[in-house]
Amino acid sequence: MSLVPPPSPPLDFASVFAGLAPHVSALDECLRDQIQAFEPEIREMAGYCIDTSGKRIRPALVFLSGWKDEEVTPDLVKVAAVVELVHLATLVHDDIMDEADIRRGRDTATRRFGPEAAVLLGDALFAHSLHLAAQFPTTLVCSAVAESTRRVCSGEIIQTLRRGTTTITRDDYYRVIDLKTAELFRVSCYLGSSLAGGSSDFVDAAANFGRQLGIAYQIYDDLVDFFGEEAKIGKTLGTDLDSGKLTLPLFELADCLSEEERKSLLKEITGERPANKPLRLRQMQTWPIFDRVNLVLESHLKEAAAFLSPFSVEPAAERLKTLLEVLRSQVAVLKIANS
Amino acid sequence: MSLVPPPSPPLDFASVFAGLAPHVSALDECLRDQIQAFEPEIREMAGYCIDTSGKRIRPALVFLSGWKDEEVTPDLVKVAAVVELVHLATLVHDDIMDEADIRRGRDTATRRFGPEAAVLLGDALFAHSLHLAAQFPTTLVCSAVAESTRRVCSGEIIQTLRRGTTTITRDDYYRVIDLKTAELFRVSCYLGSSLAGGSSDFVDAAANFGRQLGIAYQIYDDLVDFFGEEAKIGKTLGTDLDSGKLTLPLFELADCLSEEERKSLLKEITGERPANKPLRLRQMQTWPIFDRVNLVLESHLKEAAAFLSPFSVEPAAERLKTLLEVLRSQVAVLKIANS
Repeated sequence: MSLVPPPSPPLDFASVFAGLAPHVSALDECLRDQIQAFEPEIREMAGYCIDTSGKRIRPALVFLSGWKDEEVTPDLVKVAAVVELVHLATLVHDDIMDEADIRRGRDTATRRFGPEAAVLLGDALFAHSLHLAAQFPTTLVCSAVAESTRRVCSGEIIQTLRRGTTTITRDDYYRVIDLKTAELFRVSCYLGSSLAGGSSDFVDAAANFGRQLGIAYQIYDDLVDFFGEEAKIGKTLGTDLDSGKLTLPLFELADCLSEEERKSLLKEITGERPANKPLRLRQMQTWPIFDRVNLVLESHLKEAAAFLSPFSVEPAAERLKTLLEVLRSQVAVLKIANS
Repeated sequence: MSLVPPPSPPLDFASVFAGLAPHVSALDECLRDQIQAFEPEIREMAGYCIDTSGKRIRPALVFLSGWKDEEVTPDLVKVAAVVELVHLATLVHDDIMDEADIRRGRDTATRRFGPEAAVLLGDALFAHSLHLAAQFPTTLVCSAVAESTRRVCSGEIIQTLRRGTTTITRDDYYRVIDLKTAELFRVSCYLGSSLAGGSSDFVDAAANFGRQLGIAYQIYDDLVDFFGEEAKIGKTLGTDLDSGKLTLPLFELADCLSEEERKSLLKEITGERPANKPLRLRQMQTWPIFDRVNLVLESHLKEAAAFLSPFSVEPAAERLKTLLEVLRSQVAVLKIANS
């Protein structure tokens, strides 16, 4: 690994589009306004969770899939806030599962307020996002967001139940990331394009694009867990191996190892043996696991692009496609840091 | 305390009304149908939580506040299922907070599936209830249920943060039970009467009735924690003192004790001293804490009745009032068991 620190990755997906600056600013204002809706006693806690320093990739998907003449419509801002609040709520609960102390460079809610309060705070954020969703004239947003939220939670449950088990397949892994990550990407594109009055064909295409981008994004996130630098990313790394979570880099590594080495790795997953992270990271360099995983990631980005190719006249489609380049550039930054 | 076991309390609020039998049967069918909406991998877990053995007091409030000619309307059944699912979700998360092992005579979800899966399972139940709420033609149900859910969670958060602290007042206690319990009673009556086309005056009255009944019901529940019999109720008792939760029976007891005894009790709340439950139960008999608490409970039942008194021509109002008698009879059963 290079001793020279890599350039900071472009963490904020929305900010990479100069045209999204007014949208992001309206979103931040809308999110801050939501804090007042909470009971006075828990406003400070809600405000701590509703921080606006995230990557804002789901709001970016809403804005870009509903793109029209750079207009910042209140409906898109509100839906962007709804999906971001659902995402923030899932982070609060995820950090309890992962026993994570640090997220985005500061204490997680579970560390700051304790896991019990964090369970309920996540619930309150979920509930408030649905209340905001119910402010639309129809039940479209509420219905879609509630169903997506259930699917996201189901993905997390399945993942939790499978921790430390080694009988799962790559298909099981894809099923989980489809539910836990791709679903919210999908619904962001679905709602953005629907509210902007897109044709049903375009809405379908945007939703499918979002889903494939979400799968690719989760694969990227699983790469970061092994190849990222903790301090730069601002969260605890190497947690997947420690917590017995079989992700794509580990599937790829297991395929490369000798039978004996493979058995030893699986014992680290089940917890029969302590995780030997330095060894596993060295092995990941020896067999170019990064490149192998990136091939899979790239295939999902291509699939995402293919859904939009019939819609080249749609400004939204062109804008959405640039997200593929943003993710590719993040992957490239990670690769440079590991070469 | 009597050695003769008391008669089993009438646990099922809905079943005490012969007229509600078809409603309850439709509700149970609707709840069972919801299990199929969950992802196949978690249906069994969702089904475990969606048990139909509860008291069904919130569904009873929906049916009675929307009462018209004994008709079982699909809208009321669906709303009853929505509020019951929200309630079941809060129970799943409450049992994590309380580290409770037994609820309704069987393992809690947190004991059976582990606290991590239970967090997510509660989330999935919440999300599904909102998805069901979004199936109404307008956002009325979704909006009301989402806001209520946020308030219920806020009440639980405030309660959790205050555990083991002794600077809280009775007002703080009422604030918490208003949010954590009375809110869902209130919204059940609000939605039942709204969907049945009640006048806005009657809807307000029904909602206020529900709120006061909810406060009384939580006071009853706090009595049960000290005066109930664990095996009969099917859940762990005496948890409030153990977990440092100041409830009305403890406020009343503290008022009766000498300064020195009071300080000793407060040390049990803060955990500086182990809780001496046998002593506290004896003291509760000496000072008739049951009767003192029941006076407060009764004042809320009277206030509830007063909200309905201008509506004596409404069949719904007459039906709702009978719930006051059901709660009074439960209190009486508890008193007999302790005399």
